[in-house]
Amino acid sequence: MNVSIIGIGLLGGSFALAVREKYPKMHFIGVDTSPVHGQLAIAKGIVDECLPLEEAVAKSTLVLLATPVNIITDMLPKLLDLLPEGATLTDLGSTKELICDAADQHPKRAQYVAAHPMAGTENSGPGAAFRDLLPGKNLIICDREKSAPDSIKLVEALFRDIGMKIFYMTPKEHDLHLAYVSHLSHVSAFALGLTVLEKEKDENTIFEMASTGFSSTVRLAKSSPQMWAPIFDQNRQNVSKALGDYIEFLQQYKAIIDNQDIAGSLDYMQRANVIRRVLEGIEKK
Amino acid sequence: MNVSIIGIGLLGGSFALAVREKYPKMHFIGVDTSPVHGQLAIAKGIVDECLPLEEAVAKSTLVLLATPVNIITDMLPKLLDLLPEGATLTDLGSTKELICDAADQHPKRAQYVAAHPMAGTENSGPGAAFRDLLPGKNLIICDREKSAPDSIKLVEALFRDIGMKIFYMTPKEHDLHLAYVSHLSHVSAFALGLTVLEKEKDENTIFEMASTGFSSTVRLAKSSPQMWAPIFDQNRQNVSKALGDYIEFLQQYKAIIDNQDIAGSLDYMQRANVIRRVLEGIEKK
Repeated sequence: MNVSIIGIGLLGGSFALAVREKYPKMHFIGVDTSPVHGQLAIAKGIVDECLPLEEAVAKSTLVLLATPVNIITDMLPKLLDLLPEGATLTDLGSTKELICDAADQHPKRAQYVAAHPMAGTENSGPGAAFRDLLPGKNLIICDREKSAPDSIKLVEALFRDIGMKIFYMTPKEHDLHLAYVSHLSHVSAFALGLTVLEKEKDENTIFEMASTGFSSTVRLAKSSPQMWAPIFDQNRQNVSKALGDYIEFLQQYKAIIDNQDIAGSLDYMQRANVIRRVLEGIEKK
Repeated sequence: MNVSIIGIGLLGGSFALAVREKYPKMHFIGVDTSPVHGQLAIAKGIVDECLPLEEAVAKSTLVLLATPVNIITDMLPKLLDLLPEGATLTDLGSTKELICDAADQHPKRAQYVAAHPMAGTENSGPGAAFRDLLPGKNLIICDREKSAPDSIKLVEALFRDIGMKIFYMTPKEHDLHLAYVSHLSHVSAFALGLTVLEKEKDENTIFEMASTGFSSTVRLAKSSPQMWAPIFDQNRQNVSKALGDYIEFLQQYKAIIDNQDIAGSLDYMQRANVIRRVLEGIEKK
């Protein structure tokens, strides 16, 4: 069976590395606009060969689209046009409403499975891919009922075989929740990075004074702008709302300290401490 | 030599564990308002015995004050009153202006060394203490010239012997920088925790959808309110200013996505990406 990975970055590359370990005979074809990424992907054993898009798709049973989300929405209808009969197309985009919209009117909609793994790091490109990124994590599939049973079966089997747990929701639910539990964390880290960088023009001061708490909170500010700008744009209504809620909580706390309201301060943090239970749930996953 | 640790929590306990390994003959005395903490500290080998405050201080060459910062400002003058001639008092508080103010008028000011290690975790109490928390991290000493040479020599030798690097600044500089590189990260995490918890009333959704990026960004929201409320209060002018700057950066980004300003979005994140270089500096420490 041939599998094409379009966009051989962190997610597409990590998927290939995990699946290849389970299925050593599967043949992986890389498609990437960057020849350097292609060569690196072959050297790292992510794919067996790189081919031009049309050639790769024509010989594939499964096509995995793992580019930034703006390119996913652009390419999806064209890829469905090219997709051989009986083959399946899936994507790993961090937004789902616009992507599913782009597929919905296509006569071959049933050959597409809308997927999103709850996994990532702040690094990107094939050099950042690693076999253990996806195993043990969750996968969200949207609009499952719009996909053909055989396509669902193939996609779910591969993700389950690499140790992922599958959940289902509508694209609308997906994008709303993601705005809060993922996209907002990224904006908060980017803004924290900018705030501290602007104040601490002399970077040595940050080296000397920052501890692991700062590193952990700001880590996502290292993430790829090319990947995140289209996500925030496609999910802008939910992200804008989440960001508005977040700013409100910050303003509440600013008022608490400005008013020297110690009881309010304790209460605010105690309510936030409930996140400990949630994090223990995530870490147990 | 007897060393008293007042407040046997994460920092005081980790200090004792690291120093005892280097100096097995040093005798450590714990002072804590919680008898349970005292017993746990003896059981974990953090201290040899627990004693009432006055008795412990009377027989100590070094007294380490490692309580929440409001208790440090309260206790400092009283401890200096009790401190034997030739003995040294130091503290590990995360604020320095009010704490140094509390010492400055005391006739025994020279026996006090104002210190703050750039280290911590989101956990607290003697159960959270561990030997490797402080080694490899930085220590800030404030108003070094106000301390007696012998006191400075003792404190610096112990911190250097456990592998810490020492930097100097004024209490004012310390509190300003700390607001940005430490206190702000904590507020941003508490507010992020509250925003997501309020939206995601059904905690299972967070379990399913959150990835390690969210865990890392929100981790500090698990921190102790009893420890942090007094820090934010004592450093409220700087923290309020830092928080105001942060809110402004968030509002800027909200406007960028509301206006679908992709170029602005890319530029914003690219500027934040500079933090990568800073984090590599911190991780190399």
